[in-house]
Amino acid sequence: MHSSKILEGLMRILTPNVEDYLVSEDAVYIETGEEVAQFEAAWRGTIPVILQGPTGCGKSRFVSSMAKKLGRPLITVACHEDLSASDLLGRHLIVGDETVWCDGPLTTGVRHGAIVYLDEVVEARNDTLVVIHPLTDHRRVLPLERLGAQISAPDDFMLVVSYNPGYQSVRKEMKPSTRQRFATIEFDYPSKDVEREVIKSESGVSSELAGALVEIGLRVRELKQRGLDEGVSTRLLVYAGKLIVLGVEPKAACEMAFVKNLTDDRQLQGAVRALVSDHL
Amino acid sequence: MHSSKILEGLMRILTPNVEDYLVSEDAVYIETGEEVAQFEAAWRGTIPVILQGPTGCGKSRFVSSMAKKLGRPLITVACHEDLSASDLLGRHLIVGDETVWCDGPLTTGVRHGAIVYLDEVVEARNDTLVVIHPLTDHRRVLPLERLGAQISAPDDFMLVVSYNPGYQSVRKEMKPSTRQRFATIEFDYPSKDVEREVIKSESGVSSELAGALVEIGLRVRELKQRGLDEGVSTRLLVYAGKLIVLGVEPKAACEMAFVKNLTDDRQLQGAVRALVSDHL
Amino acid sequence: MHSSKILEGLMRILTPNVEDYLVSEDAVYIETGEEVAQFEAAWRGTIPVILQGPTGCGKSRFVSSMAKKLGRPLITVACHEDLSASDLLGRHLIVGDETVWCDGPLTTGVRHGAIVYLDEVVEARNDTLVVIHPLTDHRRVLPLERLGAQISAPDDFMLVVSYNPGYQSVRKEMKPSTRQRFATIEFDYPSKDVEREVIKSESGVSSELAGALVEIGLRVRELKQRGLDEGVSTRLLVYAGKLIVLGVEPKAACEMAFVKNLTDDRQLQGAVRALVSDHL
Amino acid sequence: MHSSKILEGLMRILTPNVEDYLVSEDAVYIETGEEVAQFEAAWRGTIPVILQGPTGCGKSRFVSSMAKKLGRPLITVACHEDLSASDLLGRHLIVGDETVWCDGPLTTGVRHGAIVYLDEVVEARNDTLVVIHPLTDHRRVLPLERLGAQISAPDDFMLVVSYNPGYQSVRKEMKPSTRQRFATIEFDYPSKDVEREVIKSESGVSSELAGALVEIGLRVRELKQRGLDEGVSTRLLVYAGKLIVLGVEPKAACEMAFVKNLTDDRQLQGAVRALVSDHL
Amino acid sequence: MHSSKILEGLMRILTPNVEDYLVSEDAVYIETGEEVAQFEAAWRGTIPVILQGPTGCGKSRFVSSMAKKLGRPLITVACHEDLSASDLLGRHLIVGDETVWCDGPLTTGVRHGAIVYLDEVVEARNDTLVVIHPLTDHRRVLPLERLGAQISAPDDFMLVVSYNPGYQSVRKEMKPSTRQRFATIEFDYPSKDVEREVIKSESGVSSELAGALVEIGLRVRELKQRGLDEGVSTRLLVYAGKLIVLGVEPKAACEMAFVKNLTDDRQLQGAVRALVSDHL
Amino acid sequence: MHSSKILEGLMRILTPNVEDYLVSEDAVYIETGEEVAQFEAAWRGTIPVILQGPTGCGKSRFVSSMAKKLGRPLITVACHEDLSASDLLGRHLIVGDETVWCDGPLTTGVRHGAIVYLDEVVEARNDTLVVIHPLTDHRRVLPLERLGAQISAPDDFMLVVSYNPGYQSVRKEMKPSTRQRFATIEFDYPSKDVEREVIKSESGVSSELAGALVEIGLRVRELKQRGLDEGVSTRLLVYAGKLIVLGVEPKAACEMAFVKNLTDDRQLQGAVRALVSDHL
Repeated sequence: MHSSKILEGLMRILTPNVEDYLVSEDAVYIETGEEVAQFEAAWRGTIPVILQGPTGCGKSRFVSSMAKKLGRPLITVACHEDLSASDLLGRHLIVGDETVWCDGPLTTGVRHGAIVYLDEVVEARNDTLVVIHPLTDHRRVLPLERLGAQISAPDDFMLVVSYNPGYQSVRKEMKPSTRQRFATIEFDYPSKDVEREVIKSESGVSSELAGALVEIGLRVRELKQRGLDEGVSTRLLVYAGKLIVLGVEPKAACEMAFVKNLTDDRQLQGAVRALVSDHL
Repeated sequence: MHSSKILEGLMRILTPNVEDYLVSEDAVYIETGEEVAQFEAAWRGTIPVILQGPTGCGKSRFVSSMAKKLGRPLITVACHEDLSASDLLGRHLIVGDETVWCDGPLTTGVRHGAIVYLDEVVEARNDTLVVIHPLTDHRRVLPLERLGAQISAPDDFMLVVSYNPGYQSVRKEMKPSTRQRFATIEFDYPSKDVEREVIKSESGVSSELAGALVEIGLRVRELKQRGLDEGVSTRLLVYAGKLIVLGVEPKAACEMAFVKNLTDDRQLQGAVRALVSDHL
Repeated sequence: MHSSKILEGLMRILTPNVEDYLVSEDAVYIETGEEVAQFEAAWRGTIPVILQGPTGCGKSRFVSSMAKKLGRPLITVACHEDLSASDLLGRHLIVGDETVWCDGPLTTGVRHGAIVYLDEVVEARNDTLVVIHPLTDHRRVLPLERLGAQISAPDDFMLVVSYNPGYQSVRKEMKPSTRQRFATIEFDYPSKDVEREVIKSESGVSSELAGALVEIGLRVRELKQRGLDEGVSTRLLVYAGKLIVLGVEPKAACEMAFVKNLTDDRQLQGAVRALVSDHL
Repeated sequence: MHSSKILEGLMRILTPNVEDYLVSEDAVYIETGEEVAQFEAAWRGTIPVILQGPTGCGKSRFVSSMAKKLGRPLITVACHEDLSASDLLGRHLIVGDETVWCDGPLTTGVRHGAIVYLDEVVEARNDTLVVIHPLTDHRRVLPLERLGAQISAPDDFMLVVSYNPGYQSVRKEMKPSTRQRFATIEFDYPSKDVEREVIKSESGVSSELAGALVEIGLRVRELKQRGLDEGVSTRLLVYAGKLIVLGVEPKAACEMAFVKNLTDDRQLQGAVRALVSDHL
Repeated sequence: MHSSKILEGLMRILTPNVEDYLVSEDAVYIETGEEVAQFEAAWRGTIPVILQGPTGCGKSRFVSSMAKKLGRPLITVACHEDLSASDLLGRHLIVGDETVWCDGPLTTGVRHGAIVYLDEVVEARNDTLVVIHPLTDHRRVLPLERLGAQISAPDDFMLVVSYNPGYQSVRKEMKPSTRQRFATIEFDYPSKDVEREVIKSESGVSSELAGALVEIGLRVRELKQRGLDEGVSTRLLVYAGKLIVLGVEPKAACEMAFVKNLTDDRQLQGAVRALVSDHL
Repeated sequence: MHSSKILEGLMRILTPNVEDYLVSEDAVYIETGEEVAQFEAAWRGTIPVILQGPTGCGKSRFVSSMAKKLGRPLITVACHEDLSASDLLGRHLIVGDETVWCDGPLTTGVRHGAIVYLDEVVEARNDTLVVIHPLTDHRRVLPLERLGAQISAPDDFMLVVSYNPGYQSVRKEMKPSTRQRFATIEFDYPSKDVEREVIKSESGVSSELAGALVEIGLRVRELKQRGLDEGVSTRLLVYAGKLIVLGVEPKAACEMAFVKNLTDDRQLQGAVRALVSDHL
């Protein structure tokens, strides 16, 4: 590990307890293809990975379950336009009379061999995207310019990002020089059976109702050809189920959970509403 | 609750007295549909909620009354273009010789299981919108990157936002990946009888005058088809009532309260003025 | 009053002596309609008010005189593009070893029940406009997020803003959700007699010359139909009067006071100049 | 004078020695019309003034000479896009253990009754332009929001700005609400005789050569009709004279002093060069 | 070496241990032309160098191997839009009671005669590009304006940048005044034999499989004429090899490693996929 | 010298040792016209100067040699988009317990009568350009608003800027009000003989080879009519010579030194390459 002994000698380095980031919950993730084996191979091969797939199809859950399976801490960063390199790398803080350096989430992850998950990475500013370059080529180092140091990533460290090309605005595309540093694993909505099982176990509805919600979901997703931006996610079907269990009338529950959310187009809302009526 | 013991050990954490945010006033909210039951179901199901509906139709009052009903503190944040993630999450402050961390309103709400209401959420910068992602999926955590910690939301915590699609500028739309994390409850102006009751009790005018104001309101709202941006709100009708009670001549009171405010178009102002003359 | 005892306990709160803001001058304001009674009714009804009317027609003087009449302190804020929420609400300052919170003008006004006048409010950034929302609905509170506190407005407090729709750029319009929180009082240039009196008493010119200046003003205002952006204000007519009294030749005084200022269009300047020659 | 005794009591207020701003030099300004009497009348009438006229025609010198004549200190601020309100008003500084407030140039000028000259005022950001509103209406106060105070301008204080409508970009025009607070004094290039005298006395050339340079200047200014942005200023003619006196060949001196500077258009440069050849 | 003794005397100067930046790894770089001799000549002649060539073709490795060969420390900076001059030059930090100056990576490199490699230099803000001007002409100095000093570069110091004209957006082109300070060395993908050797040794696949991957790579690169933005890099072929060795089915490994990454165009993805099927 | 004794008394003023900026090197500058005499006349006449001419034609060297000839320190500032007024003027720094004011390069230059050279001045932000106005008219003062002081320039002080109209983007043109404060000295490539001498002495190539490079340079510069942005500079010809002396094959040396750098247009590159082949 390269590092600047001088500044580090002058200054206390704070890094979070990485145990806090171990995944303890029992995240139920039901495999839908080879993605578990593929992710594990990428991790063993120290290859960074892009996860692609529609909103709410389970990418976060998948990473959680993989982190648990591999016994690595998971550090998730929701990317956004104002996420600066400092937010990822760390910053100087004055504590009492002392200046301390506080590791950011990416530095913490590199130091401790965690899986760092940058959710919707293209939303971040360009400096975030470039900061990961030296981490994702033969060097596998993280330069901390403001600390005058660079730290090397252990083999356990893995960088995972989510990215949906075509979904984000044209302006926000990954540059080839960034994208060609990652392997890609693609996700889709779960199969009918898997989805029914998920809805049933998470919302507590009957098998029948869960089946009806899955059916509605499938039909709504077909509306994407007719102009719907994005299909209904499993999450929203679970919302509908939960609301029904908590006493909301089934059609009203679907209205709350996804009719209004999927689109502002009154006609498409009507089409979704009709599909709900057909199955409930 | 995950958290960085190190930084927290070094630093005092300030969080407001959440009792200050308990709703003590007798907010009169008159139910107009199933919204009370629906909101309560969403709260019990830990489902975040979007409130939709025209300006001044009572969304703030509704949230106040629900917070009181459920016995939860209510923390309201008026969103705007310059609202940064730090404004919601908190920041470091130097007090005397000591650096303290002051919880922002969202962190306060998560820590104490409050209802946090982000008013006109799309007005906020993108980082605000993304900061709520991990709070609104299976994780229900709030990462405080600048504190090197993340806190878990208790089941009591609820995130409520108001959002009017189509009303805000095109540029400011919620991304599907954000919007599909919420259930939706829709609001409209109150019914004729409810509105008359509200105007009467809040302004002190007679039943007859309240009825005339309601009638004017209904007719003005029909002008939306002829180009009016937004109908007259109950609040403005109450203003007119109050001004009349305080001695302003009825037509002048309407002129002050809503003829000039609803539109800058001289022709439409004339139409509104004519409606006032017809009923007063 | 809700407030965070914790931070307030740690920190000194500075707020200006509100007596400094009591209006002591003898602001001469000559009533032109019902505006005095209307303003007083709005104040008694705790209704915020928008003042509309052309540049220099006396809106500032009117607010001054009302503040004096009602015995309330007056705090005026000239809004501009860089006016941030902090400029209105207050900020932390380090004084010696101590961090103190200094109330901004809006907070001062709310704390002490003043009339706060936001001049040309749409010039302010959006966060200013939204910061006043909770002050202008049923809550009448001012959330001070950076202090972790919110303060309630006493009944004496009144928010007044000036706004000229159509005059400012299209981009700068009040959103309906802001505008529908205010009642409106409209202003226009004073009547012929009132204006002559004002010019005479403020500049010291003779009744005749004052009358000639009023006549010029009326005729110039008619040029608005021929492309003049804004008519000549009473203030500029007073300037002309003062310059004449101080020895500037009458036509040169008008040239200095308003021929050059009203427009950069050479033809329109010629038309204004001709009107001056006709009457002097 | 209104002011916040509290903050002022806690904090040392620094204001420059205004004597440093008294004009001691013998600024030669040769009157070209009534501008001296007009300026003095405006100063006596506490009327703020706009100076209009082409680059380098002597506006700065005029203000200097007036400040000297009236015995007032002169504080000049060159406005630019990044000039913020704080740059004009003042700011908090930490000196040793103490926070001090340092008056900016406008505050200094108001406190001491100086003439404050904002050169090219429209170049400043909007907040600068609005900050001067309360100084230029019946109030004549300067609100110092960051100090929680406002100070009243003594009668000696005068605000002078330079502004060239049509010359600056369209985007940068003074709003009527700002412009109608000022009287205007217009400048032009000096007369032939005055200009010859100025060139002769400032550069040391012979009367003849000075006359030739004036002749060139007149002819070059006529090129404005053929596309030249701005005519040659007296300053550049003085440069040419000085360079000749210091040994540069006359035509080369003109080439250096103004042929290249007036335009980048090769054809127009040729026309200017030809005019030089005709007279030297 | 010019420098400001005053500020340096007042302040501790921190500069990283440059030994930390010596290249210790055995970076395998296989020469493909004269680039090693050319780079060495440029270094001896103190001529700064631009490296051009497609993503992932080995530019970083080349610089690493040259730094090792020449025995110079290597300091790499990944450039991005938010990289400011301070990030390169250094900044003041408060450590305890003391202000220290921390050298940035460029200053460190100049002080110690390192090779400084600015990766994708045009991504940096303009100030970065201009900061290097005095380093790359006859002066070879680095002005540190914030330290009031300038330091001279020893002959060992070399500035290397990577730049791909035509690849970055039009807006981001090096100005001639910057570009004409560098000599250029151009890179391309390695030859068939070299690439097979690299893939084999880095991923552990058999010679045959490595050959097949090379063949796929060549064919994919030909698709650039049919609209592919950038050909497949050696790095991605190595990824495919590694994934195969770790048990991923060969076609799925290619799918992960480069089919999805090279383009979002479904048709082009099909073409790449077909090429994979043809060879595996 | 005007200055605020108050603030200066409270605060230590740091200014670099101006001796460090005396030019000690033997900068070889070979005169190509009257520029030496012209510059000296401008300096004696306290006239600020603009240097115009193509990239790499020796403007920096010329200023260096003039500074040496006139015995003045030389302070060079490479201008860029983020160069703020503070970077030129100076700033407050906290050193230990004390606030010190550190002069920026322009202030240093004014205080000590140096030649200050602002390289590519139009790249600077507008505030830089305006900050120099009071330095370049009859006042010759530098207002330091943040220090509450202004300092007068001694006669030795000279401001020199480089500016290439037409070369920089349209948006970045000097305003007439700035440009008309300077005299202009124009530069061009050196004559054939001078250039051959320079190449020979700086690179060590034979007279013959130097002559061939000069010939290539001349022919390449003629390509400007065919679309080349900027001709090859003497600097790049020297690079080619150096690389040849260090063992690079002559054509490859030219390829590295200027074929790739002058243009990204493949056709024009071919034309340059052909010219190289014709002469080597």
